[in-house]
Amino acid sequence: MIKKLTRELLEQIKEKAERSRGDILAMTYLAASGHPGGSLSSIDIYTVLYNVVNMDKDKVIVSHGHTSPGVYSALARSGMFDPLAPIKGFRRVGSVFEGHVEPSVPGVTWGTGNLGQGLSVAAGHAIAARLKGIDVDCFVVMGDGEQQKGQISEARRFIKKYSLNNITVIIDDNRLQISGDRDKVMPQNLHAEYENAGFKVLEIDGHNHEEIYNAIKTATEDSQSPYAIIAHTIMGKGVSFMEGKATYHGRALKNDEMIQALKEVKLEWPIEELKALREKPVGEEFNWKGWDYPEVKQGEPRTYGKDILTDNRSAFGTALVDVAKANKDIAFAVFDCDLASSVKTGTYSTEFPDRFFEAGISEHNTAAMAGAASTQQVVSIFADFGMFGIDETYNQQRLNAINRAHLKLVCTHLGVDVGEDGKTHQCIDYLGLMRNLQGFKVVIPIDPNETDLATRWALSSPGNCL
Amino acid sequence: MIKKLTRELLEQIKEKAERSRGDILAMTYLAASGHPGGSLSSIDIYTVLYNVVNMDKDKVIVSHGHTSPGVYSALARSGMFDPLAPIKGFRRVGSVFEGHVEPSVPGVTWGTGNLGQGLSVAAGHAIAARLKGIDVDCFVVMGDGEQQKGQISEARRFIKKYSLNNITVIIDDNRLQISGDRDKVMPQNLHAEYENAGFKVLEIDGHNHEEIYNAIKTATEDSQSPYAIIAHTIMGKGVSFMEGKATYHGRALKNDEMIQALKEVKLEWPIEELKALREKPVGEEFNWKGWDYPEVKQGEPRTYGKDILTDNRSAFGTALVDVAKANKDIAFAVFDCDLASSVKTGTYSTEFPDRFFEAGISEHNTAAMAGAASTQQVVSIFADFGMFGIDETYNQQRLNAINRAHLKLVCTHLGVDVGEDGKTHQCIDYLGLMRNLQGFKVVIPIDPNETDLATRWALSSPGNCL
Repeated sequence: MIKKLTRELLEQIKEKAERSRGDILAMTYLAASGHPGGSLSSIDIYTVLYNVVNMDKDKVIVSHGHTSPGVYSALARSGMFDPLAPIKGFRRVGSVFEGHVEPSVPGVTWGTGNLGQGLSVAAGHAIAARLKGIDVDCFVVMGDGEQQKGQISEARRFIKKYSLNNITVIIDDNRLQISGDRDKVMPQNLHAEYENAGFKVLEIDGHNHEEIYNAIKTATEDSQSPYAIIAHTIMGKGVSFMEGKATYHGRALKNDEMIQALKEVKLEWPIEELKALREKPVGEEFNWKGWDYPEVKQGEPRTYGKDILTDNRSAFGTALVDVAKANKDIAFAVFDCDLASSVKTGTYSTEFPDRFFEAGISEHNTAAMAGAASTQQVVSIFADFGMFGIDETYNQQRLNAINRAHLKLVCTHLGVDVGEDGKTHQCIDYLGLMRNLQGFKVVIPIDPNETDLATRWALSSPGNCL
Repeated sequence: MIKKLTRELLEQIKEKAERSRGDILAMTYLAASGHPGGSLSSIDIYTVLYNVVNMDKDKVIVSHGHTSPGVYSALARSGMFDPLAPIKGFRRVGSVFEGHVEPSVPGVTWGTGNLGQGLSVAAGHAIAARLKGIDVDCFVVMGDGEQQKGQISEARRFIKKYSLNNITVIIDDNRLQISGDRDKVMPQNLHAEYENAGFKVLEIDGHNHEEIYNAIKTATEDSQSPYAIIAHTIMGKGVSFMEGKATYHGRALKNDEMIQALKEVKLEWPIEELKALREKPVGEEFNWKGWDYPEVKQGEPRTYGKDILTDNRSAFGTALVDVAKANKDIAFAVFDCDLASSVKTGTYSTEFPDRFFEAGISEHNTAAMAGAASTQQVVSIFADFGMFGIDETYNQQRLNAINRAHLKLVCTHLGVDVGEDGKTHQCIDYLGLMRNLQGFKVVIPIDPNETDLATRWALSSPGNCL
């Protein structure tokens, strides 16, 4: 349930959005880099969202992370932190205000920058909320260009299959990307694509605060369907010479341009004062400790005697069921990409059908979704062959590492031992790949007894783990 | 133009398909592993295709590589090689007849096994044919389950954008995947998805040879649109107790099942004789030398003096234009994912607009497509940021390595130097990742002069290269 839009709140939103436009120009101008164009086209959406959503419960996921100046400013102006903090720290070494949004910043749910990730992250949050039995609205703000990523079609199908109707997508449809007109870069009918995927679609003026609010309200009040709100916006909105120009996607204003722009957009503080602020050192602005992880009981370890013929994957499947049974009060989620019978999560799926999610052959969405779910006090397990869970989704695992998730990635079929399946199935690079990822612990048990212990340890320990 | 279907050819196809059913059972039974179910559902499609397509010119791409027994047998029965060869070698160490199709086998265009790749590969072949000015029909046989992969939606959009109307998709729609009923695993309306993406869609009985032929004929004769032929098939078709059973997706028949099956499907040779054949050693069945690469002239190297202010990416862009100009008789293709202005392929795109392909934000499709194009005597360049060209598409590059492509992957924005863009944009793992890939040469020039030489060398040398 979003907040009621009083006349007073509407006025506040209008004023905050105006101030944020100044912040965006200041941040990018002073950093001499960054993405002002998309920030200005998204800022009215961000300002409405952050001021009407219950930020202590609901989730706002920013998928086009390069609009970070807009996100940082709108979050600050909604009361999350001092608006001067991102102006001071934006894109400086040692500051959390990186060029692409980062979860160390209060209010940021997931660090993006790689496009096409946000909808999968929302699916993970929606699954987590369902498992925990809490009512959470998930909003995803996305760019229009990133709709070209195939992962989004995987996420849409999953969301529809599992009726994750608390998800609302808001597309900042400024119709421009780096290479120019979106329709020329890659023709795509967004309205039809979302509608065909089972979303209800609304089209609005993305700079009209009331329209944005009403669309969000409609979407959150309808529990029968996920929504996609296509917000028609203008790249660079608010600065006449920037409007509708792709060149300002990823370029800050130069001196003379800034002087010109400041005739149309007012800064709250003199630019010289802000410049001086950026001479001061930056440090740990916020002391983010990472996502909480539940206290998971390991259960009683099993010992497989030498006369018991079993294998590692079966021992994993058995230990998984044991631990899930020993922790019925904790939310568990096992994600599968059509290989449950091979990776031995089948017994678990029978015992806990509501805590098992079959995503089909859609590894990218699943890896990102499972990672996001793991940040919400859910014991989240993605079990797959190495070639899919590591090779195919390496970058999604990299993003899970960057976002300090607690994903339990369980991969079978590693190395040349898979033999006869052939080269494509031989994931010979698993160790090298995973060791690149900061904080991703890698455990390779040698027999079913080690597998049993490793499974119990991994499920009960925070952090990403293979 | 496919061959004319005479009554005689139709009879031959019928007989060959029957024999192939026996081959499939023999291969998987004797190897005691493999995927008989999908092979039996696809075999009528393969048999028609390989017998009516001009295999010396047109391309047949198998996307669901696990149906290899069907592919190997149908290729053999079409006259490509001895039908006993795959029965002898299937899934044995040292044989080219791996569990998933492999380009060392004559007639195999691309090694798959990772699903969702075939349509991108077809796009690469279609681009290559267009650049070389030759008339090539590209057929892609895909599974129905793999349609869940997002990469396919990227490929469809690219195919439509560039009117690659010589592409015909044939979907082996047996409605079953490992986890059972496709509609339960992940609901998806294939007909609507392809139609909405701008394909013409035909639905046929995938076991009726005449219907298969007629659909292919319709598709190849219509140059106005790409086609998707949804072939309704039955998993395990031809063996009554296997029909419609997901369990036979990836499991060979046991002894008693084989005895039962042989009452319905005849083998050409006694099973004991085939068993004895598999006792004999396997070696290099075919002596595949890899894909040809054109003779590319390097042009005149440039020297940047110490007073010239430029950077590596600009030197790459300039050298690329130089080499393309020096080799106008050779097909060049530069693929971009909405970063041409950053990776400096902009000048090239202006000079050679017909040899520049803007794919938008769809890296997975682009990496696979560019790799496939490079196997067709095309100098194929994919230029991107490291986080996309390496991290996000690591597995597509791995498949390019496995398929011994000649891709020239040019990545900028490597390492922590990208700094202010933040962690997601810092591709710090590029060296470790690429060094995993057999035959992928890695060159890291330190300045514009080295970049100039490296670019000229890479473009004129066969093999994958970063």
